Amino acid sequence: MVRFIVLWNTPEDPVAFERHYRDVHIPLGKQLPGLRRYTIGHHATAIRGDEPYYWIAELEWDSMDALQKAFQSPEGQATAQDVANLARIAGVRSRLYEVEEV
Amino acid sequence: MVRFIVLWNTPEDPVAFERHYRDVHIPLGKQLPGLRRYTIGHHATAIRGDEPYYWIAELEWDSMDALQKAFQSPEGQATAQDVANLARIAGVRSRLYEVEEV
Repeated sequence: MVRFIVLWNTPEDPVAFERHYRDVHIPLGKQLPGLRRYTIGHHATAIRGDEPYYWIAELEWDSMDALQKAFQSPEGQATAQDVANLARIAGVRSRLYEVEEV
Repeated sequence: MVRFIVLWNTPEDPVAFERHYRDVHIPLGKQLPGLRRYTIGHHATAIRGDEPYYWIAELEWDSMDALQKAFQSPEGQATAQDVANLARIAGVRSRLYEVEEV
């Protein structure tokens, strides 16, 4: 399994961010081919470190190949474009990794 | 569902870090009461942002109450102490959040 994690900083206007995220971004993301799971974590509590992580989104695919096909699809291009829109109102970092169960 | 995410920076000595993590830290973590799932993501590929995230560990419980009991247990204390050992060789940040399926 492959996971794509997106860590959003606290936005200047949380109401506008959440409205755009829920009304535009989630519907786009849910159309990504092969997507198995999409979760969000709100208002994460800091245990170690003081980075302003606000929302943590995680999207899962069966394989790196499936994820790459999704990213290259028209739906993937539209979702990436919308990340660029959201990134204008909240800082963001994202990572891609194979998930190992331990 | 509640998720505890731990983002480890690239260690100065990756071999020593991985040996300690696999031989000591995972066996401790797997004893945590109520733990439902424990995954690690290696050598995450950066898509946005240049933070040196190296390993991303995620641990899941059924509820915040179950997680708090695990953290307060003797096993939780031992695991937290071992995070402090590992944090001497790699920077770390961690967050706790309720997971919402979208």
